[in-house]
Amino acid sequence: MYFRQIADSTDGALTYLLGNLASQEAVVIDPAPRQLPVVRALLAERELALRRMLYTHWHGDDDDAAVLALLGVQAGAECVFGSSDRAGQALPDGDTVTFGDEVLHVLATPGHSAGSVCYLWRDRLFCGDTLELRGCGPLAGPGADAGQLYDSVTQKLFTLPGETLVFPGHARRGRTVSTIAEERLHNPYFAVRTRDAFVEACNRRTGAATRTGNSTTSHHAGAGRRTAVRSAA
Amino acid sequence: MYFRQIADSTDGALTYLLGNLASQEAVVIDPAPRQLPVVRALLAERELALRRMLYTHWHGDDDDAAVLALLGVQAGAECVFGSSDRAGQALPDGDTVTFGDEVLHVLATPGHSAGSVCYLWRDRLFCGDTLELRGCGPLAGPGADAGQLYDSVTQKLFTLPGETLVFPGHARRGRTVSTIAEERLHNPYFAVRTRDAFVEACNRRTGAATRTGNSTTSHHAGAGRRTAVRSAA
Repeated sequence: MYFRQIADSTDGALTYLLGNLASQEAVVIDPAPRQLPVVRALLAERELALRRMLYTHWHGDDDDAAVLALLGVQAGAECVFGSSDRAGQALPDGDTVTFGDEVLHVLATPGHSAGSVCYLWRDRLFCGDTLELRGCGPLAGPGADAGQLYDSVTQKLFTLPGETLVFPGHARRGRTVSTIAEERLHNPYFAVRTRDAFVEACNRRTGAATRTGNSTTSHHAGAGRRTAVRSAA
Repeated sequence: MYFRQIADSTDGALTYLLGNLASQEAVVIDPAPRQLPVVRALLAERELALRRMLYTHWHGDDDDAAVLALLGVQAGAECVFGSSDRAGQALPDGDTVTFGDEVLHVLATPGHSAGSVCYLWRDRLFCGDTLELRGCGPLAGPGADAGQLYDSVTQKLFTLPGETLVFPGHARRGRTVSTIAEERLHNPYFAVRTRDAFVEACNRRTGAATRTGNSTTSHHAGAGRRTAVRSAA
């Protein structure tokens, strides 16, 4: 196996490169535009052919179009959004993505966006913005739903084995990895709050942001998600 | 592969169970006495034969003798201290431990104790008390050496690939995993301080503790390491 976590030093966005050295195939998860030269260099170094670009979610930003333009034409890579946020090759819950004999499992986890998914590979979970380490991702746009997010995290992600390594979409306070057991115990949003309290806190925050026009820019990699509102802070 | 991180809820000590499901063999790293029933249950559940008990270091406590008594007689398991802290089957730097086709590499990392070692398995480092997550382990007893500890961490562990997962001997502030890249960037002891400043801080702390008789009890699993002095806090 081959695994690289590529951190963007400007905004903490994390790109993941997963390779099968036997079949010389790779997939990339949530590629950040600024990290494309690194991704390409790593693929070349190990002579890996990029088979899939996988997204955990999609907000339809211009910057992401650059990713498609740059990566999509390379080495026959196929872009799979995973998420139903964008029409195209959305992957249903329970589906799998293979590269050689390596298997990624798709978990539908709506909430952060309507079509958010997570990918499970071996004992590693790639959760995009569905679960922040010791935090809660923003509710980004009209498709977001606090109740669904709570259910996705507590009923789907938190039922995975405790040792499952959690690799998020962004570093938070310098942290780039956690485990399901840790987040189940210590995440201040999902470990402690009831569903009702969580949803109420999200609605309060969203309402306050709307009233004051204080819609915060999302932290997402290279993306102008200007309508995103951080929830449950 | 099979991997379990077993946390002791009372003192945060972490026991690691590594299994090869193909050959049905396992090794355990730094088994905490209180977790032995769990270790045994997991071995039985997966029908794994315990081949080795590996220690990253050894302080010669009575409680640890219980581990030997309980585990050492089971299923032909061999106790390898790894560390030269105890006469016996100490493993030299660069040696390997195998279970089926799985390979652990031994890294000599003196400092926390004279004979401390770390184990590297795939992209996972088991570092005992040599490196605490965002912290610095105690300098435990007469064999400890602040300068050696600094060199072991900065010149040996920090030269591993950034993605290497760091599994420590104890949870710290709820954290049970980090990466080399994270610790290289954010560990407040080793990422920032020069060797001289680090050694001076350790000596000052040790001296203060000695003068006031404030030798703190080590946090180590099930161990009466009563002479341990936390360093560089």
